Formats: sequence, structure tokens, C-alpha cells
Amino acid sequence: MLLVMKFGGTSVADLARIRNSALHVKREAEAGNRVVVVVSAMAGHTNELVAWTREAHPFHDAREYDAVVSSGEQITAGLMAIILQSMGVSARSWQGWQIPLKTDDAHGVARIDRIEATELMRRLDEGEVGVVAGFQGLSPRNRITTLGRGGSDTTAVALAAALKADRCDIYTDVDGVYTTDPRIVPSARRLPRVSYEEMLEMASLGAKVLQTRSVELAMAQGVRVQVRSSFDPPETCEPARAGMPEKCGTLVCDETEMLEQHVVSGIAYAKDEAKVTVLSIEDKPGVAASIFMPLAEANINVDMIVQNISEDGRRTDLTFTVAASDLQRALQVLRDRKDQIRYRDLRGDTDMVKVSVIGVGMRSHAGVAAEMFQALADKQINIQAISTSEIKISVLLGAANTEAAVKTLHSLFGLDRT
Amino acid sequence: MLLVMKFGGTSVADLARIRNSALHVKREAEAGNRVVVVVSAMAGHTNELVAWTREAHPFHDAREYDAVVSSGEQITAGLMAIILQSMGVSARSWQGWQIPLKTDDAHGVARIDRIEATELMRRLDEGEVGVVAGFQGLSPRNRITTLGRGGSDTTAVALAAALKADRCDIYTDVDGVYTTDPRIVPSARRLPRVSYEEMLEMASLGAKVLQTRSVELAMAQGVRVQVRSSFDPPETCEPARAGMPEKCGTLVCDETEMLEQHVVSGIAYAKDEAKVTVLSIEDKPGVAASIFMPLAEANINVDMIVQNISEDGRRTDLTFTVAASDLQRALQVLRDRKDQIRYRDLRGDTDMVKVSVIGVGMRSHAGVAAEMFQALADKQINIQAISTSEIKISVLLGAANTEAAVKTLHSLFGLDRT
Repeated sequence: MLLVMKFGGTSVADLARIRNSALHVKREAEAGNRVVVVVSAMAGHTNELVAWTREAHPFHDAREYDAVVSSGEQITAGLMAIILQSMGVSARSWQGWQIPLKTDDAHGVARIDRIEATELMRRLDEGEVGVVAGFQGLSPRNRITTLGRGGSDTTAVALAAALKADRCDIYTDVDGVYTTDPRIVPSARRLPRVSYEEMLEMASLGAKVLQTRSVELAMAQGVRVQVRSSFDPPETCEPARAGMPEKCGTLVCDETEMLEQHVVSGIAYAKDEAKVTVLSIEDKPGVAASIFMPLAEANINVDMIVQNISEDGRRTDLTFTVAASDLQRALQVLRDRKDQIRYRDLRGDTDMVKVSVIGVGMRSHAGVAAEMFQALADKQINIQAISTSEIKISVLLGAANTEAAVKTLHSLFGLDRT
Repeated sequence: MLLVMKFGGTSVADLARIRNSALHVKREAEAGNRVVVVVSAMAGHTNELVAWTREAHPFHDAREYDAVVSSGEQITAGLMAIILQSMGVSARSWQGWQIPLKTDDAHGVARIDRIEATELMRRLDEGEVGVVAGFQGLSPRNRITTLGRGGSDTTAVALAAALKADRCDIYTDVDGVYTTDPRIVPSARRLPRVSYEEMLEMASLGAKVLQTRSVELAMAQGVRVQVRSSFDPPETCEPARAGMPEKCGTLVCDETEMLEQHVVSGIAYAKDEAKVTVLSIEDKPGVAASIFMPLAEANINVDMIVQNISEDGRRTDLTFTVAASDLQRALQVLRDRKDQIRYRDLRGDTDMVKVSVIGVGMRSHAGVAAEMFQALADKQINIQAISTSEIKISVLLGAANTEAAVKTLHSLFGLDRT
């Protein structure tokens, strides 16, 4: 098999951790797999480099920021290659410009244009492991670019697509994707497989296992992604083999590859939500725009939006959520425009949580929402807003209800470990 | 003028120091000079990176070592460019591979083949300051190379040659080259100018202001090098102007550019010398080779060699010096070969010092050696060995005589500040 193996910052935090991660690589290389390793900077190192560029000047040139910050991955790649060689594994490091991994010139948030991996591929075929510095590429003007935070995941998935890899293994500090946060529900189960769509909903809801962007890329390119732990003892893991099911971690894959189809795959929650209620506005075209346009101009991200039922057909209330850190700014924007919007009153509430039920099975199963609302009502939990997508139902609750709501829904949809 | 300005590790040790160095650059750029800046890694940073590669594996791949260690200069170059921009000076960073500065593939000790500076030059002509990461280049195989310790001096001189710069300013933590070590002789004077040949003798004798290799390159390419302090307040220095004599530091230049011709320019000394005496060997062809070949094979560097006068024309003594740290190995090599060399006895003495009088004026002035020997004799200082070159006379003395000898010779040749 052709494998891309990506190790994040905590998996390469020091030389002992790099050595442990290298043992995972050695296992796969010695089993006859062709292996590309993608590494992040040692944990904490990127933050130090970023702090230096800020101290140099708060409004620094993004091209220089990229030149400085990309050095972190460069160092890890060299050290990983040295350690692999010391274990008898043929290896060399590759920086983004050496492959080259070509990007646009949006420094700091560059997008990958194309990867010219002919020489890398030739060397893989000769049995050499390629150790690639993640997070970085080369602009059309021959400058180093970086892909933004979490960019090493994107590097790994993009390389897997370009090399037509059989799998892209993302080694991290958790051993997979869970039905919900095990700190809240001890009986949460690791999911052996999860679909791209479900992973996207989970990622955007704060399950920080994979960056949203890399999941989108994997889905678009059909790259099978395995999330697994670099802290598993390397000698206890089985090497990847074609046609064998994965024994550890979580495979993020196409819906058609799912082994068992649950209606609901997981329960996610996002804290630090705030609710804004605009009371008694005119129920006529254009009033929503008069509220949300100025918020957008102020770069305030609005999530759930609920327009209440108008009692008399003339005036209504509007409720929406923003990040708690944006609440005061949002209220100020609306106060400044009170004359145009013409509302009677304005309220802001913090300490809210958004709890979401996610599952591709919902597409074909009616009644999930009704069951969910009934179960929460049975626990005396008041729902303050609702939003839905094809594979997700989210409810806004008081933050004090987080644990009770997540536990209730986790049991309700049969996700507890038996 | 076209200026290359090089800042060493102590001059860019932290952001405050980089800012101070940037003010020197701003002064020159605003005076209308075209400026290339060459930077080292922040002091201590290279040592940390080297330690990591050693910890990864003691016998690491030199190509990976170079990929890791070159990141130090890359970081300083980016930070310097950001700080220059924040001062309103148009600037960008250049890594070795971006120029490109092409080297051979002797990783860790690479030699510069050629510099293709067309794009760099075009941008200089547009008024942009080029900030070049020192110490590094690009191999024929598209890998990063490093030039070895002190390589940033070499980068600066090589760039000055390629760009036909009017001057190469080496900013360091001392304010120039002195007639001798001011810690020993408080009346030592800063030399306004010194010739390449004299600087080479001083560099190889332990005056660590410039690397021997960069002086050789400057001499071969006719690059005028100004040694000066980055700690001088930038606002008190005058910008470089064509045809104006340098007001601070020391200009290392061709002999024909020397303003005033002293017979002796400086007194240098090198401690940690050891003396080996091989007693009563046969005075016949081949006996010197039988001693020095095995030492060379053991990588022991021999400096002064004195063959004593043979009293009877049949047997003689041979004295030479090695670094004190090599003494025990040198003695062992000779003991192992006692049967072939056939000496009567072997002696080793540590605590020796080599004191040298240097000056291009010696070429045309007879009697310097005689004056020197007489002055030392007057102070009851015993000379244990002598070696000479066209512009240098060195004597080997007991280390206890260092201060007295240096002071005596400094006065004798009129070097004291008046």
C-alpha cells in the first residue's frame, strides 16, 4: 500500500516523541508499504516563532511571517529523517519548495494549486521514506507560503490525493473519533468509521480531531483518512495491509464504505454561545437584512437564526446566536442602528450551549427530531432555539444543561458502550 | 555605493539587538546606498539546533543536519526584514536557495560555486534592501547546504564579490582590529586599515574578528572589508559615501590602499601551544618525514618546526609545536614509532605561547627580527623557537612571559597610543 502518515505537534513535541512516531513509520515501511511522512512543528515551537514575528512588528509582512514560521516543520522533518535513518529506514526530508508543493500567493492562508511529486514518487518506488515538512508550500513568486493553522493535515490529505495513496493516517493525541466527549459521557464509544459529512459536522461543532478544511479536501478527493493515536505502543499495532479492516482509530470515508449504519453517529456540543433576541420588529420583507447586513460588515459570525411566529401578522421577534466573545460588539452594532431597524427592545444572554445530534442515517429516518425534543422535555430541559441540516439537528440550551442533555441523547440513540 | 552589511550572532541575539542592527541598515539605505544585509542565526540558536541533530543520532546524515541547522539564519532574515519594513525601509528576506547561492554538495562544509544574483540585483536597483540568510546555499541536487562555522562572513564576502559591492561591512561585537589585545596592553590602538596579508596572519594567530576563509576570499576577489561594531549607536555613525575615508572600525584592504605604512602593524599571541622535542636523531634525509608523516596521518596539526644545528654532522635535535590538546596523542604516535625514527629521547612541554610581530612593512625593512630578539633578551625572556614568514616573525616562549613580551614588543615598534 501507499500510505501517508501525518504526525501533529504533540506527537513530535521532543526527540523522544519523534522517536516513538518514527517506530510507527518503521513498522509500515518494513511491512513493504511505500510511506510518506508529514510532520508538524514541535509543539509550542510555532507559537514561539509567531510571537517573535508579532514582537518584530504587529502588522508584519505575511511573506516574512511565512519564511520565519515555516522553519518549525523544516526542523522536525530533518530530525525525523535522521532518526529513521538511525533505525535502518532509508529516508530523506522534503521542504515544501523542494517537492514542489505549489500554492497561490495568499501568504499565511495559502491554498494548494498542485503538487509535482515525480521525484518524490520515484524515490518512494525505490523504497525511500519521504519526510515532508507540513503546513508549507511555494508561491508562484518563489517565496515560502504557509497554509494556516492545521495546515499539516491539509498537506497530508493533498499529498495523499496527488500520490493516489491508499490511506492517509493522521496520528494525533487521541485514539479516534468518539460518539461524544468521553469526559462528559464515560460510556462514549470510539467509532470505527465515520462518513466525511458526519466528520465535517463534528469538526465544525468543535470536535478538534481534524481541521474542517482537510476533511473537505478528503471528501472532494476521495482520500480515506484514518485518525489514530501516536501514543499507542508502535509494536502493538498491525501494519496496514490492503483489504484488511483498520483495527484502531477511526476511518473517515465515503458513506458507501460504512460498515454499520446507525441513525445517529454522535452527539457534539459547542459552549461559549450567546443568544441575541430582537423584540417586536415589523414582520415585513427587508427587516432581517437590516439586522444581519451590519453584523456581517462588522465581521460577526451569526450561527442559528430563529424568526418567531408573528402573533398578529404585523410584529415579530427574532433570535440568533453569536460567539460569546462577539456578544457585546453585536449588541452595540444593533443599538447604533435602532432607528433603521425599529425594534422595541434588545436582549443578550451568555452561558448558552449548542448540542447537536449528527448522523447520515437521519436522511432516511423520520422522527429523530421529535424523539430528541421529547427526551429533553422529559428532563425538564428548555430548548431556546433549533436549527437543522440534512444530517444534523442542533438545539440551543442553557449551559447548565450541557451534561444532562448530552448524556440523555447519547443513551436515547443507542450510543452507550454495552 | 553598493554595500554588503553582515551582522553576526551577538548582533542579532534578540529582537532588541536586531532592531539596533536594523538602524545601521536604515542609515545606509536612507543615504541612498544600495544595501544587502547578511545575517547569522540568533546567538545560541545554532548550538541548540546542532545539539538536537546530535541527540537524534551522533552520526547523522549531513544533508539533514544542513536542513535543520540552516533554519536559524532563515528566522533572523525574516525578522530583520519585518523590522526594516516597520522602520519604513523597503526590504525582503532571501534564503540561499532563493537567490540562488549555488555550492558544491559537501554538506556542512560546502564551498560556494557561483551566485546568480540577477533578481536580487534588479530589486536593489529598485531601492529594496535584500536581507540574506547567511551560512547556507543550494547543492546541485536541490538540497540545502551549509558553509561551516563562520560561514556567514563567507556569504557576505562572496555576495560582495558577485555584486561588485564597494564595501563589505562586517558588524561584530568589537569595534575593529587592534594593534594587540587591549586586555593585555591598555594602550593598544585600533588600526584604521590593515592589509589582507596582515589580517590573514592575525586571524590564523587567534584574533577571532574574521574567519581566515573569508579573508582569503576577500583577498582573492579584491573585496574591501570594513570590521566595525554593531553596538555603536547607529545615529552617531556617518553613512558610507564614495571617496570618504572610513571613520570607525578597521578597513581590510589591499596593501596599495594603506594610508600610513608602519613597519609593524600588530602583535598577536596564541596560547595553548605545546612543544615537542625529539632528541638525538640521525641528521640524514628522510628522518623529518619519518616524524611528520605519522603525525599528519593522525590529523595532528604541526605549527613551528625547528631543526637544531647538528654539532658533529651526524646527530641532531628536532623541536616542533602542536596544540596543547593534541600533545598526548602526538607523543604516543612518536613512541609507537620509536624503532623506525630511532631517537634517543622525547620531551613534551605545555604552557607555551607563540608571540608574533606582523607587518607588511617588514618586506622592505631589515633588522626587525634583531630588534625583537634583543628587546626580549633585555627582559630576560628566553626564546625557545623561532619561525618567520615574509610579513611575520613568531617566537615560542614560556606562557608566563606572555604579558611582558607583548607589552615590550608593542612599545618597541611604536604601537602604543600617544
